[in-house]
Amino acid sequence: MQPASLLGQLIEALRCLPGVGPKSAQRMAFHLLERNRAGGMHLAQTLQVAMERIGRCSVCRDLTENSLCRICSDEKRNPAQLCVVESPSDVLAIEQATGYQGRYFVLMGRLSPLDGIGPAQLGLDELAAKLRDDPPAELIIATNPTVEGEATAYYLQRMAQKSGVRASRITHGVPLGGELEYTDQSTIAHAFSSRQYIQDPS
Amino acid sequence: MQPASLLGQLIEALRCLPGVGPKSAQRMAFHLLERNRAGGMHLAQTLQVAMERIGRCSVCRDLTENSLCRICSDEKRNPAQLCVVESPSDVLAIEQATGYQGRYFVLMGRLSPLDGIGPAQLGLDELAAKLRDDPPAELIIATNPTVEGEATAYYLQRMAQKSGVRASRITHGVPLGGELEYTDQSTIAHAFSSRQYIQDPS
Repeated sequence: MQPASLLGQLIEALRCLPGVGPKSAQRMAFHLLERNRAGGMHLAQTLQVAMERIGRCSVCRDLTENSLCRICSDEKRNPAQLCVVESPSDVLAIEQATGYQGRYFVLMGRLSPLDGIGPAQLGLDELAAKLRDDPPAELIIATNPTVEGEATAYYLQRMAQKSGVRASRITHGVPLGGELEYTDQSTIAHAFSSRQYIQDPS
Repeated sequence: MQPASLLGQLIEALRCLPGVGPKSAQRMAFHLLERNRAGGMHLAQTLQVAMERIGRCSVCRDLTENSLCRICSDEKRNPAQLCVVESPSDVLAIEQATGYQGRYFVLMGRLSPLDGIGPAQLGLDELAAKLRDDPPAELIIATNPTVEGEATAYYLQRMAQKSGVRASRITHGVPLGGELEYTDQSTIAHAFSSRQYIQDPS
């Protein structure tokens, strides 16, 4: 078999993007080659630099190219509020939808024992240390309202309780079974602002 | 205003892809960063090489990284048949759908005087020279069945007539107003194999 042409390789490489099948990849390749080479070059360079340099914030685990992310290095952000989310896209969604001025902790996943994702993989040891050594006044639990997200929320609530930190959960309004990332901004804003304090179950 | 973060730059750069809006670009960026950095690096490198190296075939004007494209440099392809298409994606569509063994000429557009696209922009001088100096037995006109594609087909038919080359047009089967690129393979195959010779209108 002949080796694939450069065009074939480009079409194949574009398929690593989520939601891009053979036809879309082909359309993207031809679009860039015929109409927007400058955009394609710029994308190639930005992609390379981003893949090499973007790592995790040493405090909140969010994606960033520095050792501290923009929010953690902003002294105006209130350290008394700590919002726990599953992924960096959730941080973005909350930032865009609300006026939240506190800080974040990004789990980069959710508790899922069947997939081998336990407290250690989500950095919950770090979070426990933070709750013990430098506790915020409030821990806002903003995991997704899915089965695993709720289990994670329950686990976080117990952690807060042990450390004597008041925990809150974003309220209904985010559709059940959905994902924060795809919720419209006003629903997120409503859920965020009407969050309710969690009663001690004991 | 603060300069955009590297993540923000990546999301913005991904929007040069056709059909990719802010939400999709964000999803793509997070997917690559969180789950497939190797794929992202590979895409960056392939994209850069492709944008730099892919040019036009000196004979048929198709996209290729060499001076001759794969089809033009294949001596088994029959030079007695020459198929004229609007774009490289049409070559790919015909190659995938039919057993065509002839050669191609890629216009890289269609006649569209309002957009300033005339015969010179489509390389029709080169095509006229080829029809005069090294005429094929048959000129297969496979422009899209749109208004502009039909006008281009008519122009090509007149060129063939002047050079005494027999012209054919792919037949109905490709939906009118549609584009070859998005037609299912069996429709393209049907249209291609049942092409009809054009009667001299005079």
